Amino acid sequence: MSEENFCPIKDVLGRIGDKWTIYVITKLGTKEVMRFNELKSQIHGISQKMLTQTLRNLEQDGLIERRYFAEIPPRVEYQLTAVGKSLLVQLNNLSDWALQHRNEILEARKKFGLKS
Amino acid sequence: MSEENFCPIKDVLGRIGDKWTIYVITKLGTKEVMRFNELKSQIHGISQKMLTQTLRNLEQDGLIERRYFAEIPPRVEYQLTAVGKSLLVQLNNLSDWALQHRNEILEARKKFGLKS
Repeated sequence: MSEENFCPIKDVLGRIGDKWTIYVITKLGTKEVMRFNELKSQIHGISQKMLTQTLRNLEQDGLIERRYFAEIPPRVEYQLTAVGKSLLVQLNNLSDWALQHRNEILEARKKFGLKS
Repeated sequence: MSEENFCPIKDVLGRIGDKWTIYVITKLGTKEVMRFNELKSQIHGISQKMLTQTLRNLEQDGLIERRYFAEIPPRVEYQLTAVGKSLLVQLNNLSDWALQHRNEILEARKKFGLKS
């Protein structure tokens, strides 16, 4: 992408704007480290394949760290990096904004005859 | 959506997470009021239809206000509401975060052999 067309918000939302990415980051924000199955059981509806892909993308972006322990059975742990934690702060702020203004938005929609 | 499944971040990103919405909000943040054609000429690549739809959605969410002046020719002006301005603050913060961490993310991707 040329510098002229570079839009940092689009770039970041294009990467972190899907719901699974947001779920994984916020879930990882609740504990120091988490294992794959722990994440999977706590993120309702995510498939094994989708969780694997989401974790890989986050790792490649340097937002989470994956640690492999060659035990029997092998253990794999995930945790937010410093950059990932700073993104979590942004997501929490956005979440707070959404909660604060949710009723106003729903009220506005009602004026237009929209149900939600 | 039941309260149990309510995810404010998903809800807000589902609404404002597309690039045209972000472009319109940030563009409206640069001036007090803007007219349709002014927005269209300043948002590269947006179609008349897409701009119309994006503005309508934002108006229905109460994030922008549309004012119609029955002049000849008619004049229509758009501006951010207070809620829209508060969302702009969030988007600017997210943009700052993306700019601050862009190089780190690109470096992380390089380690995985990704070009961007």
